[in-house]
Amino acid sequence: MGPAPRTLEFFYDVLSPYSWLGFEILCRYKNIWNIHLQLRPSLIAGIMKDSGNKPPAMLPRKAKYLTNDIKLLGQQIQVPINFPKDFFSVILEKGSLSAMRFLTAMKSEHPEMLEKASRELWMRVWSRDEDITEPQSILAAAEKAGMSTEQARRILEKTSTPQVKNQLKETTEAACKYGAFGLPVTVAHVDGQTHMLFGSDRMELLAHLLGEKWMGPVPPAVESRL
Amino acid sequence: MGPAPRTLEFFYDVLSPYSWLGFEILCRYKNIWNIHLQLRPSLIAGIMKDSGNKPPAMLPRKAKYLTNDIKLLGQQIQVPINFPKDFFSVILEKGSLSAMRFLTAMKSEHPEMLEKASRELWMRVWSRDEDITEPQSILAAAEKAGMSTEQARRILEKTSTPQVKNQLKETTEAACKYGAFGLPVTVAHVDGQTHMLFGSDRMELLAHLLGEKWMGPVPPAVESRL
Repeated sequence: MGPAPRTLEFFYDVLSPYSWLGFEILCRYKNIWNIHLQLRPSLIAGIMKDSGNKPPAMLPRKAKYLTNDIKLLGQQIQVPINFPKDFFSVILEKGSLSAMRFLTAMKSEHPEMLEKASRELWMRVWSRDEDITEPQSILAAAEKAGMSTEQARRILEKTSTPQVKNQLKETTEAACKYGAFGLPVTVAHVDGQTHMLFGSDRMELLAHLLGEKWMGPVPPAVESRL
Repeated sequence: MGPAPRTLEFFYDVLSPYSWLGFEILCRYKNIWNIHLQLRPSLIAGIMKDSGNKPPAMLPRKAKYLTNDIKLLGQQIQVPINFPKDFFSVILEKGSLSAMRFLTAMKSEHPEMLEKASRELWMRVWSRDEDITEPQSILAAAEKAGMSTEQARRILEKTSTPQVKNQLKETTEAACKYGAFGLPVTVAHVDGQTHMLFGSDRMELLAHLLGEKWMGPVPPAVESRL
């Protein structure tokens, strides 16, 4: 028996494109590295408010850069990411509260479906420029992820319970306690130390901290499947 | 004869720790990849002002994160980087105008010494917590880089000429025209396309754009020498 897997907590919101990139990289490595990956759906709006940070796209020159950065990273990392046409309305106004509550309920009811459902919500908002705020949008994503309509409806009902609302709040607060000022945040527990890494571009550093091998954002075992 | 090397412009300021990390990575790869690396000393204060951006350390939670991020990256990338004790005074108040004018003069008078002199200035401010604003500090860095006292003094005299002042301004403006809102900025000219990459954490993406192999921030050929 080898050493016990190290726990990684991955805090994310489907509104955040860099969260998607980090998510796909970690999902690819979770069976390659000796890690236990905990997906933790959080609310980016709550983290921005609590930390006093502002979305980078508020600065015009950064907004222009991000558009191109995300396009190039999507090609490199092989994630079909596309900027929504009306970024400000989709990302800053409509938000992700219902979607993240849905994923929070999913995590407690059907944790084995969380990865797929998260990916399908990203596919809607960050690939096909589709809504993720209406109940039918969320149901459609859950069905694409492989749930029955009935299962999906039952989880959707849970999103208005105090338990689910509080759970999302608590997870968001946990990210803040680790020092988050945006998403994604990866918290690595290694040899009694806790490292908080921000962004999708610290995965090679994460490999270094874990003593694992970095084989790029598309490790060969995954490349053959894509 | 192989294909012509692709030109990379690297805009940096010795006040910027991520510039140092990016600089060392590119200096290591400049003889491994088929590239022509142009070092372009710039003024980060000018770029922040022109873009309306604020130093990330102004947000307390980011400042705390950066301290740790830079420490971990320094270990991974094998650059002896240390936070100055009084960050706000050293970085935000004292600045780098004289140092960057000196490197600008160095680039036109002794371009072959620019890499070493830049590194010695970083060693002062970002490793040993030493001054880089006084003439004797700049001269000490130049001598450590291998210049004679006389050579260094002659370059120091040039820093007050309109030519050098304008050159630093022009380089800073060139970075802004490429869309810079901070440093470092790497501008890659590949197959008739121009890509502006921000930060020290886009080097694997750069390799992807160049069609070159990424072997980590410390490629094996360099590791044996460190």
